[in-house]
Amino acid sequence: LSSAESPDEGLLSPGAAGSAAEAATGDRAVLQAMLDAEAALTGIMPAPSGIVAAVRTAAQAGRFDVRDLALRARRGGNPVIVLVEELRAAVGEEAAPYVHRGATSQDILDTALMLVAARTLPLILTDLDRTAGALAEVAAAHRDTVQAGRTLTQHAVPTTFGLKVAGWRDLLLDARDRLAALRLPAQLGGAAGTLAAFGGAGEAGADPGLIGAYARELGLSEPLLPWHTLRTPVADLGTALAFVCGALGKLAADVLVLSRTEIGELAEGSGGGSSAMPHKANPVRSALIVAAARRAPNLVAVLLGSLVAEDERPAGSWHAEWQPLRELLRLAGGSASLAAELSASLRVFPDRMRENLSVTGGLIVSERVATALGRPRTKELMARADAQGITFAEAVSAAGHPDLVDPARYTGSAGALVDRALRRAARPGASPRTEPTP
Amino acid sequence: LSSAESPDEGLLSPGAAGSAAEAATGDRAVLQAMLDAEAALTGIMPAPSGIVAAVRTAAQAGRFDVRDLALRARRGGNPVIVLVEELRAAVGEEAAPYVHRGATSQDILDTALMLVAARTLPLILTDLDRTAGALAEVAAAHRDTVQAGRTLTQHAVPTTFGLKVAGWRDLLLDARDRLAALRLPAQLGGAAGTLAAFGGAGEAGADPGLIGAYARELGLSEPLLPWHTLRTPVADLGTALAFVCGALGKLAADVLVLSRTEIGELAEGSGGGSSAMPHKANPVRSALIVAAARRAPNLVAVLLGSLVAEDERPAGSWHAEWQPLRELLRLAGGSASLAAELSASLRVFPDRMRENLSVTGGLIVSERVATALGRPRTKELMARADAQGITFAEAVSAAGHPDLVDPARYTGSAGALVDRALRRAARPGASPRTEPTP
Amino acid sequence: LSSAESPDEGLLSPGAAGSAAEAATGDRAVLQAMLDAEAALTGIMPAPSGIVAAVRTAAQAGRFDVRDLALRARRGGNPVIVLVEELRAAVGEEAAPYVHRGATSQDILDTALMLVAARTLPLILTDLDRTAGALAEVAAAHRDTVQAGRTLTQHAVPTTFGLKVAGWRDLLLDARDRLAALRLPAQLGGAAGTLAAFGGAGEAGADPGLIGAYARELGLSEPLLPWHTLRTPVADLGTALAFVCGALGKLAADVLVLSRTEIGELAEGSGGGSSAMPHKANPVRSALIVAAARRAPNLVAVLLGSLVAEDERPAGSWHAEWQPLRELLRLAGGSASLAAELSASLRVFPDRMRENLSVTGGLIVSERVATALGRPRTKELMARADAQGITFAEAVSAAGHPDLVDPARYTGSAGALVDRALRRAARPGASPRTEPTP
Amino acid sequence: LSSAESPDEGLLSPGAAGSAAEAATGDRAVLQAMLDAEAALTGIMPAPSGIVAAVRTAAQAGRFDVRDLALRARRGGNPVIVLVEELRAAVGEEAAPYVHRGATSQDILDTALMLVAARTLPLILTDLDRTAGALAEVAAAHRDTVQAGRTLTQHAVPTTFGLKVAGWRDLLLDARDRLAALRLPAQLGGAAGTLAAFGGAGEAGADPGLIGAYARELGLSEPLLPWHTLRTPVADLGTALAFVCGALGKLAADVLVLSRTEIGELAEGSGGGSSAMPHKANPVRSALIVAAARRAPNLVAVLLGSLVAEDERPAGSWHAEWQPLRELLRLAGGSASLAAELSASLRVFPDRMRENLSVTGGLIVSERVATALGRPRTKELMARADAQGITFAEAVSAAGHPDLVDPARYTGSAGALVDRALRRAARPGASPRTEPTP
Repeated sequence: LSSAESPDEGLLSPGAAGSAAEAATGDRAVLQAMLDAEAALTGIMPAPSGIVAAVRTAAQAGRFDVRDLALRARRGGNPVIVLVEELRAAVGEEAAPYVHRGATSQDILDTALMLVAARTLPLILTDLDRTAGALAEVAAAHRDTVQAGRTLTQHAVPTTFGLKVAGWRDLLLDARDRLAALRLPAQLGGAAGTLAAFGGAGEAGADPGLIGAYARELGLSEPLLPWHTLRTPVADLGTALAFVCGALGKLAADVLVLSRTEIGELAEGSGGGSSAMPHKANPVRSALIVAAARRAPNLVAVLLGSLVAEDERPAGSWHAEWQPLRELLRLAGGSASLAAELSASLRVFPDRMRENLSVTGGLIVSERVATALGRPRTKELMARADAQGITFAEAVSAAGHPDLVDPARYTGSAGALVDRALRRAARPGASPRTEPTP
Repeated sequence: LSSAESPDEGLLSPGAAGSAAEAATGDRAVLQAMLDAEAALTGIMPAPSGIVAAVRTAAQAGRFDVRDLALRARRGGNPVIVLVEELRAAVGEEAAPYVHRGATSQDILDTALMLVAARTLPLILTDLDRTAGALAEVAAAHRDTVQAGRTLTQHAVPTTFGLKVAGWRDLLLDARDRLAALRLPAQLGGAAGTLAAFGGAGEAGADPGLIGAYARELGLSEPLLPWHTLRTPVADLGTALAFVCGALGKLAADVLVLSRTEIGELAEGSGGGSSAMPHKANPVRSALIVAAARRAPNLVAVLLGSLVAEDERPAGSWHAEWQPLRELLRLAGGSASLAAELSASLRVFPDRMRENLSVTGGLIVSERVATALGRPRTKELMARADAQGITFAEAVSAAGHPDLVDPARYTGSAGALVDRALRRAARPGASPRTEPTP
Repeated sequence: LSSAESPDEGLLSPGAAGSAAEAATGDRAVLQAMLDAEAALTGIMPAPSGIVAAVRTAAQAGRFDVRDLALRARRGGNPVIVLVEELRAAVGEEAAPYVHRGATSQDILDTALMLVAARTLPLILTDLDRTAGALAEVAAAHRDTVQAGRTLTQHAVPTTFGLKVAGWRDLLLDARDRLAALRLPAQLGGAAGTLAAFGGAGEAGADPGLIGAYARELGLSEPLLPWHTLRTPVADLGTALAFVCGALGKLAADVLVLSRTEIGELAEGSGGGSSAMPHKANPVRSALIVAAARRAPNLVAVLLGSLVAEDERPAGSWHAEWQPLRELLRLAGGSASLAAELSASLRVFPDRMRENLSVTGGLIVSERVATALGRPRTKELMARADAQGITFAEAVSAAGHPDLVDPARYTGSAGALVDRALRRAARPGASPRTEPTP
Repeated sequence: LSSAESPDEGLLSPGAAGSAAEAATGDRAVLQAMLDAEAALTGIMPAPSGIVAAVRTAAQAGRFDVRDLALRARRGGNPVIVLVEELRAAVGEEAAPYVHRGATSQDILDTALMLVAARTLPLILTDLDRTAGALAEVAAAHRDTVQAGRTLTQHAVPTTFGLKVAGWRDLLLDARDRLAALRLPAQLGGAAGTLAAFGGAGEAGADPGLIGAYARELGLSEPLLPWHTLRTPVADLGTALAFVCGALGKLAADVLVLSRTEIGELAEGSGGGSSAMPHKANPVRSALIVAAARRAPNLVAVLLGSLVAEDERPAGSWHAEWQPLRELLRLAGGSASLAAELSASLRVFPDRMRENLSVTGGLIVSERVATALGRPRTKELMARADAQGITFAEAVSAAGHPDLVDPARYTGSAGALVDRALRRAARPGASPRTEPTP
């Protein structure tokens, strides 16, 4: 390795390191996708027999030096230009002219990144489905497990742990649906998106149907137009991935709160150790999921900013997309993987939930008491409890209303809401759609 | 006015000032929406005759002092608490207990912001539809108007102005579809989302069907669950609005480039004046649209960050949503309004487009020449032109290929792509859906 | 009021509503600052006696219709153009030519926003100083109040509340120093930053010293060059304000954790009420401070993005700055005001701190035990405690080391660190510098 | 390599690939910095002779498997925990207890990232100094080269290319000064920042002076307090780096505009080629610099958001910092390297500047004419020119004022401003300060 060699191997990305999404988005995977995009292009254009096979044979990432390509990419500002040179050299003189015919760099790199996404999304969906399944079980099992409802950090009124988990699942299914509904199009337009050079040197460009043929060859969607500067696919993909990170972040944030030492209602199945304290069992997965949820919105902000792409192909906004898009795939994939582990092994402590309900001495049902007895009378009972050094529950009971103070009997429609939420189907099996042009 | 009074009247928001969306999102409109949310709640709960009418009568924004509410909102951290006090006082002692029964502040404010959105989106959609219509006409009229295709700021190959405009419209329709597909749900859950207090002081909470009744009363969608901490509706709304800003930003960025003094292919119908230079006609609308597109992604980043909402109602992430959400409605509305004006009055100068095509002396068709004669031969002709002080077009013609150098005969499939794009229907009339629960 | 009138009066900004910073940044304050910028310009240019006074007299915000200016600003894309028309009309025919001589809109608006900042920063600094003072007292008072140190949400080792508060103050002083070190320059350059028209119609422009004269007239700093597209002042101001929001956010985040019902070590002096639950005392100030800290980074991101300002004056990036810059002033000012209240009235419960220290049965000192007895022996004692159903502290004591298990005797150098931190002077009185050109 | 191995080698980062900053920030460099932090810690704590040397010998990145560490880091949420295990194993049983004594993971990783920054910043500063030097030469050489001043994309009034370049340099020096003024502190606090375990098992922690000793051992600054949750150093570093990216982005944005085919006043020394068009010479460096400037603000937004770090060490906000911080170092380093190349080889075409000045037929001096003859008379001459089909310059000359229409004689104080700007010293040699505690 030369001194200039400086690969990242995930040392600062523990949330994604080793995940399937990480492997599917590495430089080598991107390179293979670019080669697949080139080979498919040769495949759909007229060519003598043997040429297509030669290109396919040569288009194997293992035959190229990724680092060398990266270093030489700077000259042209993207890695396609040097890759085309290398691939032409690899296929030999006869086949060379059939490589990259009519295409522009952006055709290949956009298509490649959509291929990378198409290969990564099913991995993420699998983990989201696993998580949704586990959460459905937890929600059903704890449909009636009473727990303090907390608002603005304070005990508010009782709820159930089942309702909380049903909410996690519902949000996760929202995320899942958004991922599954994505359309990942191939890119094909040529130098300025007119398809001119795909038609050869003649006056007419290629039939627009060529775009569909290219998409089908690659298992991607067919766009209505070349989208060099119409960046809907990138914005939608990024947004859906950031939504995944955020949705899992809600779950993780709740686990962090509920596993606080003083609260102790939840614990991660196997906590992370500490380099200093033998007793520590840190909610590490939750912390990493939250970390991803903090980063994702600003990554998607870059992509939404790149909608403003001037001319037929822009100078900078396109280049700014590549890393944030890949990082979003990784963060979402890493978080989904962590969430699957977390949900499958989450430890629930109903006894602590019950104990914590009594921490306020009955104030957690003050709303019910106020509904039954009126707000002035309730305030009066609160004052009496303070004056007499008894709990609010005791004061209410002493005033003849012991039936009002059991938190377990003031969970409202929590159970019915859990049932309602669990009727929402997880729709396993759906995946990014390959659809005909509308 | 007290010295503490400090209203903003749009002085720093010229892109939105005076737009329909601005009026629909002002503090008074938000206040009216909160009052509508309160009145609807009284309306769906059991109440003696006369009470509902009394609340409706009182629930008029004009009867309240917005600034006073704003100042007193600080105490509770949101404007609902003081509003409920005021509304109860306004309806009189008998009706007061029927105001805000069972609800929590977030029920009212979330519902109100969705109402504000529901009232603003049709205004935005109208302007987007007007813009799409105008662009369709421009694209059709200039289907075959040849123009330099520009990539990384440089002339690349010819394209048509029609294809560029068809692309603007296509991106705009993507934005429009995202807005029109939004579901804007009512919020109803009570203190911790269990619906407990809507059922009175009894053990059982209200039937979850109450949420649907509330939504129908307000013309909003019915959510599956209370969404105090399941912020899909806010994330989706914000994302769609940021997408609108970005999509219009592409159009505006192109207008800015093409109306540059040296390029002069486009001009805004009536340019903005200058405080210094009598001759200036600035592309002001485009500048303001671009400014909105620069801000929108970071506003939506806040909303996506607020998906991580801990507990049953969060301490901070919810409060952080209000202003960015409103600002996105305004930016999208302002930009749509500006784009409607811009597209209706855009001045197109095909002669300048034609003149600019010759700026490179034929290099703009170098790709075609290379396809026909090979890259080495093309490089040779480029060198010859340099050496002889003639243009590339002259060199290619002199070499016997005058047919290859007319830019107007190398627009590829631009025309066919315009036709294809214009077949995409604008679907006027669609608006945010009110849908039954799945 | 016309139907198009739509002022915001702070209804969705409870964190800033009523604060001094809000008043100093309202549309009227911005208008006054623009008028001050115009009057100062007339003041430094040669003019017949009486003219300057006439302009000063006319340049009162109360004489103008803010909303009308806002609506008419759209045409030119900024509010200066119409303001100049109005001001010229107001001063009369003779004085009119002396208004805005040589200037461009951006000279006036940039200068005005710096004036607004210069008037707002001392208000923020006052609240930060008040907060720092209160925190110094709390830190000193609780120098030795033992509290659980928490990492990744779990009890780690003991610390003191004094050290935590000393840290809050240290971070706040960092923020304060950044604000106080800001240089807020006047802007003067004319149409393209060459000062050409300030010199009249002659060939030579004005002496660059004119910029300094203008700055001195307004009490602002003198920049080295006109900064129409050299946006250091805006980036620095925005960054410092976002830092203030973040620094106060740390304090607020800790208050939110420590005032959780189960933890109960802190409470806001007077909690916010609830529209549903009589007993609730919400940490409202902390929630609003955290909300501001969630928004500020994305506002400053827009400002940092606007560093990329093309040409002599940009089309969009400048326009995108105005609202985020003002909002940052408000958020920082609102948060500083809330923090001053919060720190002055914070309720501290040392007994709860002490109680919580024992929640883990001594595991909070496992690090000390491991240091003394080795990690294997410590793990063994942990296992023994589990097996015997006793606490870790009991197991360690039973093993002959009762001296190791008192959390109050394992606070390390917390006290010394508090002393060290409190020696850092608050430097009251410093304020944004008016400095000569380097 | 296992199938899970997925290194990034810069394929999607052409702006940074191969730069010195990239090499200084790779995973191996981070690993070495962590090892240096561990070795320095052993070095300042009491230890038998030989131990320190043994740890230093073992603490070589080349002896560790980066990928394996990355994969195993997930368990504890950061790479330090596994590294400590490995390092203890490597140094042997006797030395093992002297490794990582008293420290927490965050001590090591925070210190390591500051070390990485300390090693990278001088590389960036060198390139900024080279760029500043080249720009000073260009500015001086073109002090009086007249060029169209452009505002909102339109010709405004004349300026000089020298003034534009002097502005680039001034902004760059602002960026440089911010980098050079950074203080990069060591981190040392132990489990909860009390220094408890550095004092051994006794009651008293280590003297706070230990922090200074550690800092000096590493050549870093001494912080006043452990800064596990007082994130000023990270916020400041990130902000300064984003400022660098933005400052260079201004330069690049101007190059992109001025090298547009129709404008042609500048060209990059050697343009990037195209995979499709033989004639293309793309301003690739500028595009990559602009791409970095689009990403940097959103990376720093994450860091500013992480100021809100709860407890003694936070669960997520810290973990969210690592990648954005490193990426900012790379983007700034890559952009500085590109800018150094760009500025050294920029091609300037004064003839085109002169030609473009006449594009408006004299309207570019309309401000001067209006100052001399009044705005009404100027408008009249503009109308006359239109009516007669002559240029504005011709109309003004015909009206007896030929002296007013030469753009070269209306550059105002551009020359004086260049001189003033170039007197600002570049202060080469300054670098991040190592300072005593205040």
